[in-house]
Order: sequence, then C-alpha cells, then structure tokens
Amino acid sequence: MTAAALLDTLRQTVGAAHVLTEGDLSAWEQDWRRRKSGRALAVVRPGNTAEVAAVVRACAAFGTALIPQGGNTGLSVGSTPDASGTQLVLSLSRLNRVRGIDAANLTMTVEAGCILQSVQEAAAQAGFLFPLSLAAEGSCTIGGNLATNAGGTQVVRYGNARDLCLGLEVVTPQGEVWDGLSGLRKDNTGYDLRNLMVGSEGTLGVITAATLKLHARPVAQLTAWAAVPSMEAAVQLLGLAHRHLGAGLTGFEVMNQFSLSLVARHMPQLRVPFVGMDGAPWCVLLENSDSESEEHARARFEHLMERAFEDGCALDAVVAGSIAQARELWHVRESIPLAQAEEGLNIKHDISVAASRIPAFIAHTDALLAREVPGARLVTFGHLGDGNLHYNVQAPKGGDAAAFLREQEPRVNALVYDAVAEHGGSFSAEHGVGTLKAETLVQYKSPVALRMMRAIKQALDPQGIMNPGCVLLED
Amino acid sequence: MTAAALLDTLRQTVGAAHVLTEGDLSAWEQDWRRRKSGRALAVVRPGNTAEVAAVVRACAAFGTALIPQGGNTGLSVGSTPDASGTQLVLSLSRLNRVRGIDAANLTMTVEAGCILQSVQEAAAQAGFLFPLSLAAEGSCTIGGNLATNAGGTQVVRYGNARDLCLGLEVVTPQGEVWDGLSGLRKDNTGYDLRNLMVGSEGTLGVITAATLKLHARPVAQLTAWAAVPSMEAAVQLLGLAHRHLGAGLTGFEVMNQFSLSLVARHMPQLRVPFVGMDGAPWCVLLENSDSESEEHARARFEHLMERAFEDGCALDAVVAGSIAQARELWHVRESIPLAQAEEGLNIKHDISVAASRIPAFIAHTDALLAREVPGARLVTFGHLGDGNLHYNVQAPKGGDAAAFLREQEPRVNALVYDAVAEHGGSFSAEHGVGTLKAETLVQYKSPVALRMMRAIKQALDPQGIMNPGCVLLED
Repeated sequence: MTAAALLDTLRQTVGAAHVLTEGDLSAWEQDWRRRKSGRALAVVRPGNTAEVAAVVRACAAFGTALIPQGGNTGLSVGSTPDASGTQLVLSLSRLNRVRGIDAANLTMTVEAGCILQSVQEAAAQAGFLFPLSLAAEGSCTIGGNLATNAGGTQVVRYGNARDLCLGLEVVTPQGEVWDGLSGLRKDNTGYDLRNLMVGSEGTLGVITAATLKLHARPVAQLTAWAAVPSMEAAVQLLGLAHRHLGAGLTGFEVMNQFSLSLVARHMPQLRVPFVGMDGAPWCVLLENSDSESEEHARARFEHLMERAFEDGCALDAVVAGSIAQARELWHVRESIPLAQAEEGLNIKHDISVAASRIPAFIAHTDALLAREVPGARLVTFGHLGDGNLHYNVQAPKGGDAAAFLREQEPRVNALVYDAVAEHGGSFSAEHGVGTLKAETLVQYKSPVALRMMRAIKQALDPQGIMNPGCVLLED
Repeated sequence: MTAAALLDTLRQTVGAAHVLTEGDLSAWEQDWRRRKSGRALAVVRPGNTAEVAAVVRACAAFGTALIPQGGNTGLSVGSTPDASGTQLVLSLSRLNRVRGIDAANLTMTVEAGCILQSVQEAAAQAGFLFPLSLAAEGSCTIGGNLATNAGGTQVVRYGNARDLCLGLEVVTPQGEVWDGLSGLRKDNTGYDLRNLMVGSEGTLGVITAATLKLHARPVAQLTAWAAVPSMEAAVQLLGLAHRHLGAGLTGFEVMNQFSLSLVARHMPQLRVPFVGMDGAPWCVLLENSDSESEEHARARFEHLMERAFEDGCALDAVVAGSIAQARELWHVRESIPLAQAEEGLNIKHDISVAASRIPAFIAHTDALLAREVPGARLVTFGHLGDGNLHYNVQAPKGGDAAAFLREQEPRVNALVYDAVAEHGGSFSAEHGVGTLKAETLVQYKSPVALRMMRAIKQALDPQGIMNPGCVLLED
C-alpha cells in the first residue's frame, strides 16, 4: 500500500514512462558479472537533478531504500537491489548532458549519466585529453566512475577518478541539492566533501554532475613491450622509467607468462611478444606520452631501454612502430580477462601493495598458493605503476572449475587477503567494496577507521536509505 | 581544580618539562600575523604518537579543548588558543622524525612536526623531489601543511598538499590512533578519511604522521619573466604554456605593476624586469622543469615564447641564464609581501576564481573598489596557474593606514568576497578558514554543505574539544 503510494508519487515526479515495474528488468537488477540477481520495487529514471532530488525526498518520506545506478558495470555488486523487492533502483542514465567545456580553465562539467567514452570524446573534440581510461569505458558512466573512484590504465600519470574531479553536484539523503560544482584548483573553505562523496559508492548521496580536469593532449604516444627477468627487475624498470620519462610515463602494466599464454591460446590471431620466453617470467607494457614529437618520444624511449638493458632489468623489448602496432600491444594486455574467461572459471582479486613490496608479496603468495591449493594457476597482471595487481586464481587444469570455485573461493580469498594485509596492501585497489566485499572490509579495515566511517554514514544518512548494505554492513 | 588535575595527568604523560605554563608563551599563544593573542591553560609537547593519544584522552576525560599546533605560521588564526585560559595548545614540534623513505615506491613517511624544508631536504638527499613549496617553508610543519591543505608555488604541476599525501596517522578526538599510513596509490576500501582530515584544520583529529609522494627531480629548471598587455593575455599565455610545456610547467605566477613598483621602491638592490613598462599592466613568471637537459628546456621555452610573441600575449620576456638569475626572478616575486608591508598596512585576500573568469573578475572588482574605496591601491599577485590571487588592498597613499583598516576592512572584504562569489570563486584559496574566516564561511558557503560539515563534526567530535571555533563557529 505504501509502496503503491510511493510509485504514484514517483510517476507524478518523473513521468509514468520512467518508472519501470513491468517486464524484464534484469539489466538493472543483475550485476555485471552476474554474481547476484535482485528484485527492484521499481527502476526510476529521473531526467534532471531536480527530479533526482524529488525522488530522493519521496523515498526519504516513505523510508524506502535507494540504489543509485550508472552503467551497472561495477565489479563489486554495488549498484543492484537486494532480493526483497522493496528497494528502488535510481538510474542516472538520462542525466547525460555535457553541460559545458571551459577551455581556458581546462575543465568540463558533465552529468553523472554520461558514458565515460562520450566524456573522452567531448574532451578530444575540444582539443583536450580526459585521461580516465578503463575496460568498461564504452558502457560505464562518469557518475559511477566517481562513486567508485575508478582507476584504470593511466593512473601512474593522471591519478584515479578522484584526482580528475574538481567539483560535484550531489543530492543528499535528505533530497537537498549540494551545488559543489567548481572549476577551482584551490579552495580551502571547509571539509573536503567532494572527496568524501567520491568513492562512497552511493551510500552518502547521489552524484548528479561533476566538473572534471582536462589535460593537454599528448603530441605523440609510444608503446613498448619488454621481457624482464624477475618481478624485482620489473620494479627496477619502473623506477628507471620514472627517472627517464618523468611525466611522460602514462602507462606501466605487468603480465605473467601464464596470462600471456592464455591470450596466445585463446586469441591465436594476436601476436604476443616474448610469450613463453625462457628466463622471462614477466612482460611489461610501457607507454610514453610526449608533448613534443614522435621523434622525441622515440629517442627518450630508446635512451631508457638502453639503460634498462645495461642494468639487466630488461632482456628484450619491442617499441611499436605505428599507432596500429601500439593498439595491438594494448589489445594483448586488455585481452587477458577475456582469455582467462575462455580458459574457464577463476577467482578474481584486485589488490594493491606498495611497488617496493610487490616482489616479496609475489614470492610469498605464489609459494603459499602452490602449497595450499595444488594445481591452481595464477593469472597475474595489472597496473604495476600503481602497485595494483589483478592476482587471479584459475582452477586447476582439467578439473571441475565450478566445484573448485564453490569449495575454494573463500579459502583462497582468505589466503590472498591475509598475504596482502601482511604486506601492508589493500584488498580492493580500484573496484571498490560494494556488497561483495563488505564483510571483507570488516575483517581487514582498521576498527578505528570503521568506527569513523560508520559515524559519518549515520550523520549524513541517519535513515540508512542510501544503498544499504553497500560498503558498510547494516548493524 | 580540575584544571590542576588535568595538568598533573599531562605531566605524568609527557613529563613535566613538556607541559609549559610559566614564562613567555607568546610564541604559541599569538598567531603569525599577530592579529590575535590568546592565553593557554598550558602548552603540551608530547614526544610521540602514543603520548599525543594519551594527551587527547586526558582532555576528552576532562572536557578540555585542544588546539593542535605545528609551526604556528598559519595566516587564518587557526592554531592559537582563545583568551579564556582554558584551552590547551598541543604542539606537535617534537614529533619530527623522518620515519623512512621508500625509493622504489616513491614515498616517504614523516612525522607531523617535521619542518617542511627538512622534508624537502630529506627527499633531495635520497635523490627525489618533494614539491610542496611556500614562503614559510623554513618554519612551517608538514602536519600544519596537511591540516590546512597548503598550496604554494608548484601547485600548477604537483597539486596542493592533499595531492602529495597518500596516507595519514591521526589521533581521533577520542584519543584513538588511526593508522592510515599507506604508500598505496590505489585503495578503494571505504570512505576517504585521509582527504577528510586533510584541510580540516585540526577540528576532526590530530595528524601525527603522513606518507608523502615523491617525484623525480627535474634535470633542469628554467625561469622566464614576461611582460603581458592584459590579464586576458596572461590567461592566454597560461594556455599556451600548458600546451607547449605539458607537465614541464611547474610555476606560473602573475604580478601587477603596482606590486612590482613596491618591490623596486623598497628593495632597490633587486632588479625588477619590466617594472613600469608602458602598455604592460602585468608581468608573469614562468617555470619550466625538464626531465632531460637544460638545452632541451631552453629550446622548449624559446618555442613557447616565440609563439606567445606571435599571438601578442607577451610583449617582452627574459629567460634566466643561470640558476642564480632564476633565483633572483623568484626572489622578486616572493618579495612582494615584504614590500607591501614596508609600504604600510593593507587588507589581504587569498581568493581563487576559474582562470577563464579572472580577467572579468579583475575588471569588475578593480573598478568597483576604485569607485567605492577611492585611493585604495591594489597589490594583486599570485598563482595564476591555479586561479589563485592575493588580491590585496593597500591603504591610500599618505593617509592613516591604521584608521583605513579599522574603518574599511569589513566593507572591503564584503565587496571583494561578493565579487568572488559572483564569479564562482572561493574566499579562501590556500590559507584555510581558521577562526579569522569562520563567519565568512557561514556567509558564503552553501547551506547544504555547511549542514553536512556540521553533521560530520558532530559525528567525529561530539564533545567539540578539537580546535573549537576554528572553521565551524560554535552554535
């Protein structure tokens, strides 16, 4: 009865066509990796910020929980409803305007529902670079990127999503609009509400728009692929790259040989440099972005690689000779998730450790898993420039992968996360907590930090209607 | 009586020698610019984090207010006690160890009481750059820099203090230690408590240590000084500099002719390029940091300036031929505050506006003040690369400057801050709110933001013992 009254209010607010209750709602109710499927009271699609605020006020009045949703491409199950049928999915997809580009200030203001790729393209059309870049960029939204503080491949130079955001517009859990849009690079007038909202995964408010930083577009971009003799050598090469390329270093990815062998096996059309090379357990992809010329970029890269060969931290390397070749190298790297899916089920981790401690972490954890989970195969790759590894565990060859996951996933997670904690790392580097890792957060986060987080949640959302169960478990 | 009991507890905690109650305590009781002088119950100087926590627990038990203090060089009166004699000054000066440098991770961990210059030097000795740089660097502490999110001269490239911090150790208002020290560049496990603490000016907790980002040291640094025909031209030159120098652009300062004339008048030993030049109301200082060579830096700079002359956004320019000459150019810029002090009393502002809107802001506000405050002389200079101007108002020539300040300061502030607000700017770009601008915050901050800030303060510091009256006025 109250649900019906709420739905009536919502229909009056956003129009009946934008309150979905019938038909196949699985696109909104099921998470990207199909780990959980819930049921929504309704999917509501407001068309502007004022409508978002009205929807939130209605939910606050009825005490109804709201699940803000962008592209629903998250990997930690943070944007879908539970199975109760009482939660509302608040889709931001209709808030998809670029509100403006301020070239002289190097900023653009966009609405939360803009697809990341559209944001990149709008920036490029204005002659600038918006550097956030990640696998889901064709479907994810900038609002979701900010709510989860997305990472991706360019973080070593440009930072995470939070580092690319200067201001936000947010609807509070009380349905008020905080106009915190700002193109200011310095503003010390009180607490940093922007960064509190960024990464809070829709539990403290609904991001409806953002002012983003633009960067100058590089004149040339070169990509290299190097075979390295050890993880120690990969970390040493990272240090050399920082010294030799300075801010030109825009990408530094690492891949183990097993992950490359999966690409070679399942994508035979791709040429995988140095796959299976003796004495080279790892390959590294480096990207050098230059504000001068391709010639200059090439000279600097060659200088770096000469030094790397001298120091013994690279065994062999290729530098892409064309943009097409550079794309091909990136394509190999980006094909690893698909190749491991082709190989079968696997247990995924998104962890980070200080770059200096990654060699010890790998040595320790690889040996631990070999001992404790015989036959498990490690698909290790990721953004070494940020200390971020996707340390994935593929089921043993030929076994029943589904049974392996069912029986081993909690134990493997505990082994890996304990090892991460011992090495001062994070169990969620760039994918967030969502509902999937809310219990993990309780186990591994400092109790003092958890108490502060709970106090903040209670202070800003005392009714607990914003994305309940995401990030912080309910009491 | 309870005060005596508290002091006894504190003496047992940190040693009697570190609980100061006698003698001249003005170094701790008076703010840097001598705008306010308070009286402390005592100045307590704990020697480590555990002692800080014990001091805070004792204060919480007695309900005694705490004023955390670093170098006490702040410009917004945020680190000195009120006149009641009931507040404790908590000096972090004895927490001054560099805990470690992690070269492979490009991080260093330092205690809050480290002098900024010592942090810079420790980084340099390890072969790295810690880029935070500001006038008070010989006396201010890194804890204070983080508590106020300090800015300075390198923000255009490296960001504010918050952008240089990866993790914090904080004593909460309950006297618990949050060990949030982290060298991780990606960590999405819950709310961003680090950025909430950074810039909260000691009102949410006491920063006791931090893990900071290190950068590669530039191989060469070149400095240029250009005369420009208008503020529009200065902003256009900024855009050109971003495009031509990319991440090499590490400084972009602007100065009006009146501020340069004050330097020429009061520091006759300094050579001030283009001072009084016809048709050039502004000069710009540019810094180009190069990871390659001085030759390369010079070639890029010349390329930029050629283009600037072609476009008419620079009339003339000099490029420093040596490090000594570069220092001299910076010295002229940095002498402006002293020169204006020599000239007499003035009303200071630390404002920011989007770079694109600065020309309109200047045209509007200069005309407004000329009309409303006849004879006032504008000392306008600052970090144009960040949209941050020190828009200072010097008393009319020959008049009674003290009377001018007494009679005109509130009115001039209102005129300037209203104009800033109309142009979407901030009344406090890099100096923070302190107690000095707490009322200004209430006037100009969004009421929604203020409500969120108050809710957070109440949630984390329900007793209200942490730096009361700073940032947020007491109810």
